[in-house]
Amino acid sequence: MTMPKASQAFPRSEYLRRLTAVKSEMERREVEVLVVTAPANITYLSGYTSKSGYVPQGLVVSLKDEEPTFLTRRMDGPAALHQMFIDRSRVIGYPEALIANPDRDGYDAIIDFILDKGIGHKGIGLEAKLLPASTVEKFRSRAAEAKIVDCTNAVTWIRGVKSDLEIAMMREAAAISDAGMLKAKDVIRPRVREADASAEIIATLVRGANGKPGTDLASFFLCATPRTSTCHIRWTEDVLQQGSQVNLEFSGVRHGYTSPLMRTMSIGKPSDVIRRLHEGEVAGLEAALAAAKTGRTCHDVAAAFNTTLKKHGFEKESRCGYAVGIDWTEPTASLKEGDMTVLKPNMTFHLMLGNWIDEDVGYVISETFRVTDAGGEPFTKLPRELFEISS
Amino acid sequence: MTMPKASQAFPRSEYLRRLTAVKSEMERREVEVLVVTAPANITYLSGYTSKSGYVPQGLVVSLKDEEPTFLTRRMDGPAALHQMFIDRSRVIGYPEALIANPDRDGYDAIIDFILDKGIGHKGIGLEAKLLPASTVEKFRSRAAEAKIVDCTNAVTWIRGVKSDLEIAMMREAAAISDAGMLKAKDVIRPRVREADASAEIIATLVRGANGKPGTDLASFFLCATPRTSTCHIRWTEDVLQQGSQVNLEFSGVRHGYTSPLMRTMSIGKPSDVIRRLHEGEVAGLEAALAAAKTGRTCHDVAAAFNTTLKKHGFEKESRCGYAVGIDWTEPTASLKEGDMTVLKPNMTFHLMLGNWIDEDVGYVISETFRVTDAGGEPFTKLPRELFEISS
Repeated sequence: MTMPKASQAFPRSEYLRRLTAVKSEMERREVEVLVVTAPANITYLSGYTSKSGYVPQGLVVSLKDEEPTFLTRRMDGPAALHQMFIDRSRVIGYPEALIANPDRDGYDAIIDFILDKGIGHKGIGLEAKLLPASTVEKFRSRAAEAKIVDCTNAVTWIRGVKSDLEIAMMREAAAISDAGMLKAKDVIRPRVREADASAEIIATLVRGANGKPGTDLASFFLCATPRTSTCHIRWTEDVLQQGSQVNLEFSGVRHGYTSPLMRTMSIGKPSDVIRRLHEGEVAGLEAALAAAKTGRTCHDVAAAFNTTLKKHGFEKESRCGYAVGIDWTEPTASLKEGDMTVLKPNMTFHLMLGNWIDEDVGYVISETFRVTDAGGEPFTKLPRELFEISS
Repeated sequence: MTMPKASQAFPRSEYLRRLTAVKSEMERREVEVLVVTAPANITYLSGYTSKSGYVPQGLVVSLKDEEPTFLTRRMDGPAALHQMFIDRSRVIGYPEALIANPDRDGYDAIIDFILDKGIGHKGIGLEAKLLPASTVEKFRSRAAEAKIVDCTNAVTWIRGVKSDLEIAMMREAAAISDAGMLKAKDVIRPRVREADASAEIIATLVRGANGKPGTDLASFFLCATPRTSTCHIRWTEDVLQQGSQVNLEFSGVRHGYTSPLMRTMSIGKPSDVIRRLHEGEVAGLEAALAAAKTGRTCHDVAAAFNTTLKKHGFEKESRCGYAVGIDWTEPTASLKEGDMTVLKPNMTFHLMLGNWIDEDVGYVISETFRVTDAGGEPFTKLPRELFEISS
């Protein structure tokens, strides 16, 4: 029996629209073939979310073909047949002999495919900055006739402006983020282990919201006293106490799409500095959203936040956020002063206002929003509170 | 107030032992400085498990210094102060200006540090195959006097033989894996959503076992009918049915250390082919463990499995497993025919016998074991059953 297609997260027309945009960028860059290797970019162009990217794989987009071709380890072929919108003839499994083999690997299978098909004579695009140097060298030497063009982030920039279908998916992810944060408010209590609170929150992120389950887990961070100045610790073996502060960052996931959310909770009264910081940050968040209008820039959003926060007597060293979508961060536009990226409707950002100002002082709040003509429209609905939990 | 040290997963003497092994490998390779960038290698040499590796960071090991120095994004400095065994003077945060900056990044801060300290004149080791080509080029041009030596996997190979302290940690992770699989047996039922079953199992992996919580989540895969020939899909929105088969792969995590485990469950009677495959695989698993003795080779273990499975009328294309430890796979030794790596006591492997033989037939079983003079000693205690779940 052959593998059936999964019900698809997006219609075929949506994937073809995305591929059309990629192909016109390829023409601009004078490449006939683009080898897409970044997992989030593969998801974007095909619907594939299986986690096989720890070995070589590539989605080969050719100007000559409507559909791309996916080359992957043979054992991952069935998942590609199941999840990708493309025809089954376009999924090619390379043999196991190319795994843990110092002489030839999956990239050789991709190069073989391009050479055999006689495509890419003029130019082959690679996401070169994300590939090992030896892989780029292999393309240069084995496809010696072709010009190798660095197309790192070419697809990622296209991902920056979402379709309405993608926005709907990010709203579903946001509803899960909200549900997780409400669960956190319920389970964060004195004498509860950080791990047990995390287990409940994470289970909520998997179960999902509104009948739509989470389809994956993204990063999850619970940084509690005395670690409130840290930002990337999962959780610890400690037990929460009266007086503990808990900084949370996580996201629901729907078919790869995320809508990250951060909030600070305090078991008992928060400290005076945290309350003042919260006020300044919420004012800054509102100013940033108001500034996030079509036609303005990433710089403008960051400047609105920074100016407002400064009026409240604080500063934030790190950027105020970044483009967000599949698998969380898009390494393209940053909400920081000096980033002159012009905002377009349906660009989406994680307005990440975590502020770790001293070794014992850190506060987090964030929202994921889309750009509209009227300003940033957040996807999550959670109140902008510093949640005070009574013991 | 300064950040306190976390209670350490291992004593200082254990980290110094690991560093001594790394330094003698550095001498052999004629490098005075090794820049460790693979996150699992940083964990190994310092205790750091915070998830900051999505931006440049490096643990600089110098032959001149007992302790290494960690260069990381400034916002991640407090987590390093908290988790790493090293003195606080050895954690150096680089400024936010190096984030999302096309001209200079965190690797420039690492190069500045090496040049300023006047170390590494003769040779600088890099995990070059894991770094972007442009980064390796930057080291070559900015540290032009030094010989740049590719030390990819040098630390990873040292990780291959575990200390007794590490074995104890992997046993703790294994107990969590067992608990997760027992929970799976409880929650996998007809009319249960795959997501809801996954939520319960994952929550168990976070809560942990024997009073020791999970400290992170590793990969998690629940591949159910009609996806039993896939291996890297998280779970789907589908509802389990009478007759569904469920292939599971996951691991508990303790301070970075994993002990992955796979089992197959069937709601109702499994198919005949799956029962026969199960028998062959369990026989193969036992033969492989018996062969995994000090002094034999990875090849011998794979051959024992393959020969036994063949007697049962089946074959497995993919390798039979790989070295395992921090963050799951160690990209070094493979349990496959032709890999002549000699087994030493306390080498640890994931004997990964997932076998996806057709587009609608896949079966999984695995155990994580250590090499002993008497053969492979598994860490998990779960029976080697094809779990049949009555509806």
